[in-house]
Formats: sequence, C-alpha cells, structure tokens
Amino acid sequence: MITFFADKKLRFLDTTLRDGEQTPGVSLTPEQKLKIASALSDMGIHTIEAGSAMASEGEREAVKLISEAGLRSECCTYSRAKHGDIDIAADCGADSIHLVVPVSDLHITKKLGKTRDEVFKMAIDAVRYAKERGLIVELSGEDASRADPSFLRNLFREGVRNGADRLCFCDTVGLLTPEKTAELIPEFCLAPLSIHCHNDLGLGLANTIAALKSGASCAHVTVNGLGERAGNTALEELVMSLEKLYSYDTGISKEKIYPLSVLVSKLTKVPLATNKPIVGEMAFTHESGIHAHGLLRDATTYEPMSPETVGRKRRIILGKHSGTASVKAALSELGYEPDDQQLKEIVSRIKKLGDKGIKVTDADVMAVADAVMMLECKPVIDLKQFTIVSGSNSIPTASVTMVINGVEVTGASTGTGPVDAALKVLEQSVAFAGDIRLEEYHVDAISGGADAMVDVTVKLRKDGRILTSRGARTDIVEASVEAVVSGMNRLLREENENRSRNTD
Amino acid sequence: MITFFADKKLRFLDTTLRDGEQTPGVSLTPEQKLKIASALSDMGIHTIEAGSAMASEGEREAVKLISEAGLRSECCTYSRAKHGDIDIAADCGADSIHLVVPVSDLHITKKLGKTRDEVFKMAIDAVRYAKERGLIVELSGEDASRADPSFLRNLFREGVRNGADRLCFCDTVGLLTPEKTAELIPEFCLAPLSIHCHNDLGLGLANTIAALKSGASCAHVTVNGLGERAGNTALEELVMSLEKLYSYDTGISKEKIYPLSVLVSKLTKVPLATNKPIVGEMAFTHESGIHAHGLLRDATTYEPMSPETVGRKRRIILGKHSGTASVKAALSELGYEPDDQQLKEIVSRIKKLGDKGIKVTDADVMAVADAVMMLECKPVIDLKQFTIVSGSNSIPTASVTMVINGVEVTGASTGTGPVDAALKVLEQSVAFAGDIRLEEYHVDAISGGADAMVDVTVKLRKDGRILTSRGARTDIVEASVEAVVSGMNRLLREENENRSRNTD
Repeated sequence: MITFFADKKLRFLDTTLRDGEQTPGVSLTPEQKLKIASALSDMGIHTIEAGSAMASEGEREAVKLISEAGLRSECCTYSRAKHGDIDIAADCGADSIHLVVPVSDLHITKKLGKTRDEVFKMAIDAVRYAKERGLIVELSGEDASRADPSFLRNLFREGVRNGADRLCFCDTVGLLTPEKTAELIPEFCLAPLSIHCHNDLGLGLANTIAALKSGASCAHVTVNGLGERAGNTALEELVMSLEKLYSYDTGISKEKIYPLSVLVSKLTKVPLATNKPIVGEMAFTHESGIHAHGLLRDATTYEPMSPETVGRKRRIILGKHSGTASVKAALSELGYEPDDQQLKEIVSRIKKLGDKGIKVTDADVMAVADAVMMLECKPVIDLKQFTIVSGSNSIPTASVTMVINGVEVTGASTGTGPVDAALKVLEQSVAFAGDIRLEEYHVDAISGGADAMVDVTVKLRKDGRILTSRGARTDIVEASVEAVVSGMNRLLREENENRSRNTD
Repeated sequence: MITFFADKKLRFLDTTLRDGEQTPGVSLTPEQKLKIASALSDMGIHTIEAGSAMASEGEREAVKLISEAGLRSECCTYSRAKHGDIDIAADCGADSIHLVVPVSDLHITKKLGKTRDEVFKMAIDAVRYAKERGLIVELSGEDASRADPSFLRNLFREGVRNGADRLCFCDTVGLLTPEKTAELIPEFCLAPLSIHCHNDLGLGLANTIAALKSGASCAHVTVNGLGERAGNTALEELVMSLEKLYSYDTGISKEKIYPLSVLVSKLTKVPLATNKPIVGEMAFTHESGIHAHGLLRDATTYEPMSPETVGRKRRIILGKHSGTASVKAALSELGYEPDDQQLKEIVSRIKKLGDKGIKVTDADVMAVADAVMMLECKPVIDLKQFTIVSGSNSIPTASVTMVINGVEVTGASTGTGPVDAALKVLEQSVAFAGDIRLEEYHVDAISGGADAMVDVTVKLRKDGRILTSRGARTDIVEASVEAVVSGMNRLLREENENRSRNTD
C-alpha cells in the first residue's frame, strides 16, 4: 500500500455552497445552506466556503447564519480583491475569506481589462486590509494553471509577507494533468497550500491527489462534484480514494457521506448520475448474473468497499443478465421461496421480459412468481379504476375505486398536479386498512419523446417498515399508481400474513 | 506540453455494448446495437466488443449483425474459457474474442471454486482452441489488480506462447491508482496490452492514462462511462484528455462525440449527469455573472475547449448569479434589444426570481422583458384552456382551446399518456399556422415528493429552425404545455416579424 500522506495532516475545504451553488439553475436559501453546512461540520470538514457574501442579500444572510451557528468548521466566504467585499465578509462574521485574484494573463487582460501590476497591487492591498479586519486569508490564484509561474510565485511570496495565512492554486478550467500538477505545485508551497480543481476533462480527482502528494495540504471539494460545467473534485471520491487506495485516515465520518449526498441532491435539485462513484444509484446495485453470483458468495469479488462504509445498502435487481442466484435472492426479499423447478421457470420468464428491453420491476417479479408458483393470487388491494382530470382552468383531481380486503372504497382528492392528486387519493382510500405514507417519490429523467417510458420509484412507510416499489409505463400517472399500489399490496399482504401466523 | 504518446499508435476498444449494456436495467436490441456500432466505427474506434454471444439468442443476433455489417472496426465478443463460448463466437462471425479469465485468488476460489492450476489450464486450452477456430484472441485477466503478479505473468507468457495475439489487464473493481498502475503495467507488456479500468473511486480515466504511459497500447472504454456500478473509463474523456492535455492525435472524429453520447443515452435510457465532463448538459452551459461576462469577451477564459470541437453548442442561462452581460446575451437570442435602463430593471427582476430558488425559464425571461419594456404584448398564441382526462379505464385524452393570430381553435387528441395527448393536440391545433414538430422531450429526474417541481425541456422544429424551450411547474402536464406553447409562440412570432419586415 502506498502511504504518501501518512505523516501529513490534510485539510478539506468544502465549497458546495459557493462553487456548487454556482451550477446554472441551482439556488439555495440561507436555511438550506445552514442545513448542508451543519452536515458538513458534523462530518468533520475543516472549512466551509458558505457563499459569496458580496453577491446578494440572501448570500450575506447565509454567511451570517452559518458563522453564528456554533459549528466546529471554519466559516469562509468568497471575496474579490476589493475593500467593499472584505468589509461585507467581516461584517457577516466570517472566520476567513477565499480571496480570489485572477492570475493568468488571459484572465487579467480579457476578463478584468487590467495589467499584471494593477492586479498585483490590488491583491496585496486586499490581503493587508483583510488582515486589518481580523480575517484569516486564503490568497487564491484564479486560472493559476495557465499563469506565468514566476508572476504567481512573486504574488504568493508578497502575499505571505503581508499576512496571507494560506494560499490556493486554482485549476479554474480543469486543464491540469497529474504530471503537470506534480511539476508545478512544489514551488508554490510558500505557506499551507490548497488545491482547487475542476473536472472538465475528468481528471479533477487525480490532479487533487497529485497536488496533495506534491506538497499541498488542503483540498477544495464539493459534495457530489457539483459546480459549474463539469463541476469540482467530489468530496466523496477524494475521501474514499485517500482512505481506501492510499491508506490515509482522513478523520471524516465516512458513513455520513451518502446521507449528505442525498441531502445536497434534494436541496439543489441536481439529480445524481446513476453511475456516479460511491453515491450514484448504481454504485452498489448489481444485475449481471455472473457478478451477482460471485457477489452473493463474497461481496468483495465485485465491490470496491462495503456499501455500509459510506452509509448505503447493496441492491440486487433483475433483468436479462440475471442468473439464478440473484433471482432467488430478490424473490426471498419479496417473501417468495420457490423450489428449484419453479425458480428455473421464473428465471426464464424474467430473462424474456429483459430481452424485450423491459426494466423488470418488483411488481413484474411478483406477477411472474405468483403465476409460476400458482399461488392463490389474492392481492389485498384490487384496483378497480382510477381517473384523473386536470387542466389550465381546473384543479387537478383524481378518483379511485379499490377493493381492499374485500371492502370496496371510492375516494377523490385534489393535488398540485395529476400525479399528486392520484397518490393522495390512494393514501386516503387505503387509510382504513393501514396508515401508509409516501416517503419519497422519484422519477428517472425522461428522454426521447413524450411517449417515452417513465420509470417511477416510490418509498412507502407503514409503521416502522419502509419499502421501495417501482412502476414503469408510458403514462406517468399510471406508472406512479402502479408503483404505489404494488407497494401497498406488499405492505398489507405482509401484515395479513403476520396476523394469520399469530392466530394460528 | 507533455507528449508521452507521440511515438505510439494507441488503439481504442469500445465495450459500451458489453460492459455498458451490463448496467442494471439496460437492455439493447440487436438493431439498436448495430446503430451504436456503426457510429463507433464511423468515428474511428478500432475494436467494438459487441456483446456476450454465449449469453442469449439476442446477443448472438447482435454479434452476427455487427460482424456482417461491413464496418471498419474489428468485431469482438466476450467469451469465457469454454469451448462452447468460443464456438458460438466463431459461428457468429466475430473477428476476435475478449477471453476473460479470473486471475485473483479471490475470484478463482470464491467465484469459480477452482484452483490456480485449473484456471491456468482452462485458459491456455481456450487460447489454443480459439486460434484453431481462426479468432484473434485478447487474453484478459479479470481482477488482475488484485492478482498475484507472478501468476498473471506466467499465464500471459504461456498464453502468448500458445497464440494469444493481445493481452488485457482488468481493474475489475476500480482499485488501481495511477502510481500502482505505473508500477504494475510494464511487466505485463509481453504482447500488445490493453487496459480495462472501472471507475469505482473516480480514478478510471487517470489509471487508463497511466497505463498507456507505462506501456499499454490499447484502452477499453465505454460511451458516457456506462458500465456496472460506477461504470468504465469514458470514451469521450479519454479521447479529449489525450488530445487536449497530452497533445496526442487519437485519429478519432471528435465532433461525433456528442451525437454518439446522445444516441447511447437515448437507447440505453440512462440519463447523463448534468455535470458529466464533455457531454453533460452543463459542460458548456454558463450562468454565473462574472464567468459569463469573461466568457462573452473571450470564451477560453472559462471553457477548456470550444464546444464545437465535440459537436456541441454553448448555452447561457439565467439565474440569481446572472450579470448584466449574460442577461443581455440571452435577451438578444430571444429577440429583445432593451436599452440600458430597461436592461438594469430586467436583471434585477430576474435575480429576484432566482433568489426564490426558481429556475428561470425562457418564458419567465420573456414575461419579464415584455413587462419591463412595455412591449405591446401580443403573443401569437393565447392559450385559453387545456383539459386532460386519463385513468385506468379510459384512453388518455386532452383538449385545448387557443387563439392563434386571432383565430380561435379547439381540438382534442388521445395519446399514450396525458402528457403525450396534450402535446399531440397542441401540434394538431397549431398546424394551420405552421408545421411545428416536437423533436425532443426531456424531463429532469424528479426527486422529493409527488408535489416536487417538474422541469421540462422540449426541442421544437419549424422548417429548418430548431428551438429549445423550458417549462417548470409542479404539474408535469402544465409544465409540458407551458414549454411547448412558449416555444411555439417564439417560432410563430419570429415568422410574423420576418413577414412584416419583408412587406415593409
């Protein structure tokens, strides 16, 4: 095992609330920012860049909220080399500023329309003023990877001489390679140096690690790799790479990684790629027959780490690649114990569904299993009809008729949209048989035409038990109703079975 | 510029149709596979791993179709070390096999329940048999990164002695680092060596590049980084890193990268992360005020490459970070030319929308601009009402009443779901004013509750002109109708303006 970092105290500066929030279309309220900052602090992140205090009233409120919340993390705000920005940062109670100064000639001339000399003077003046105002200063070279190294070194040297506490090297457009990073970084370690990488060409993480190996001691990261364009180095990837591949103890609470990732995705409304390392939906999901087979014998065969390490669970789903072992495991989770003959037939029918390009849902598996095992197929809920009406001049309305445990119920509800109305009336109508709540509703991104398949996943809660159920149709309302009714059926069936067992 | 590869002919083996298709929930028909294979071949990919011929009838058909299509690329199929698999590969007309043999003790004992000796013999026997059957053989060590290097070297040496044409080193669970890769790879270059990396910890690309630097001459990749768990090394990231950062001419047609990415995402139904490098929605989208400002002066300030290089276009969207320059650019694209005073007011109102956490759509921008500029707000289309009815026992039906250029039209249509029905009736009803087609319909993943905001993007085509329009509501039907009507309005307004200009 390589242990480049064993003797070093590495720090993490999380910039989800600044770089991450600059993702086009993302906007967080001060309260939402505080929620994320608290989670970052709990997890052990050293510094939180809370926003750009000078940018708007909302940003100032967020920095204030976070700096006054008594978090363990240092509260930092982005600042330009302007007295006004620095005053705002100090007035908001920030501990530190990320003082960003463009340092490449491209940025100096094309963006600012200034000269190197002017920028140099502004930067040093800003460092001095910020120290007067009592702030910790991280002097940061924007577009450093395209700057003249001698200009940047002079700027950093003079910055440190005038009080800068830390320095930062920004690869603003993601143009570094690990080789170039290793070559450049050592000469800039004139004070504790941060590395700030973007992922435009997919090398953000590798470059960050290369910089830490070459003398940098703090990494800038964002949760889920959020950030403009292709985003920044992902917190979860850096922490887990250092821990797992470089045997470095980061001091971060790793089991909090996944809950944090979900929180950020939910609040920013930026969905995660299904194949995002560590936190993506598929990172610990397995379908392929051979792989799931090995996996069931020993999970390390096809998993880089146990999902529990990062606060997750393993998931096995079925499809055309599914082998017998994984179908059996899935059936057992759904409460079916087929014999070998039945299992073989179920596997063959599921493969056929998969060959047609169908994503196999739990409902499909149960329908196949019921048919093959010739179970007396008595679903608890029998959906007789549902109807939705909606439009520009009417409130979305849904009605439903279901037979539940032999009792016919008809109900109606309104909602914020036809799906919401339909799911509300289902919740209401089933209430007499059990208190089932919709905990989470998720639709995979829909691509193609308006007639594309819509994939709905819901989480339902009944008493302590939470269950996931899926539906897939070209009609989003139908898919949603299918997912919920099939989940409700399983929850109530389990209850009926428990009851009959108890009275046996 | 570093030029490690200048003197080397690197090859690319694309395994989207095998590793990529093994992503849980993904299933491609033989015809879809052929479509992707043709695009890969056109682009200049050397070898296409078309599937696992032994796995199913559909897979065999796909390998046959692709091998008989007269593509420039070599057609390869996955094969285990079994005569049966090799026979199927040869019978399907494949040029080569990716002969995969587990080589770590973990995989040998836990997955196969065999010994090193048994696996060694099976592998060598399979190499010989495949050569007898006339196949090009790439002998591949599965889980090589956790194998005993001396066992793997012996296996590779004996494999080459028995006719293996190429070798492959698989980091099956994504546990390599660039350092470990550089240390391991040289000793395995006993024949042309491929590197096959997974991205479980985010280092797949960096490890692939490290291997190519250390002696490997072929990279296994997938389009969009598809593949089990966190996927494989992404084709587009590797090609663009080599070209852009390592000055290596890959010979790949780079401008075909984005269309291919869209095709694969559409056929596999795996949506791309918005911040996926190079091909993600946000990779060339800009919001932040400061950045968009620099960008409008010189695009290289905040772009790692020109979007056209990979077949894309730049996009500027508005939000709370938007500065004056980017709002002006967006307005100009929408056909508005406000004076400075008006522009200032529009920027301020748009920032307020953004501060509320609202994603600013084109419709919002136009509404704000219309109000501020006190334009005689004569939209071409005035939507009077729409209504949808749908349910388990009824065909999804939509009606709409619109006034178009002063003429009131009422129409009705059915569809595969309420959204489809609504968009169909819009297309039909507007037909007399212009032939406007819905080219693409996309919904961002919906997370949270059934009352979450739904973000719809549509592409509409009228004659040659294609236009993108967005809608955001809690009701998916309303959001879809909003997006389409606002886009139709712009297309027809442009037409009216052109007409009035021509008659002036």
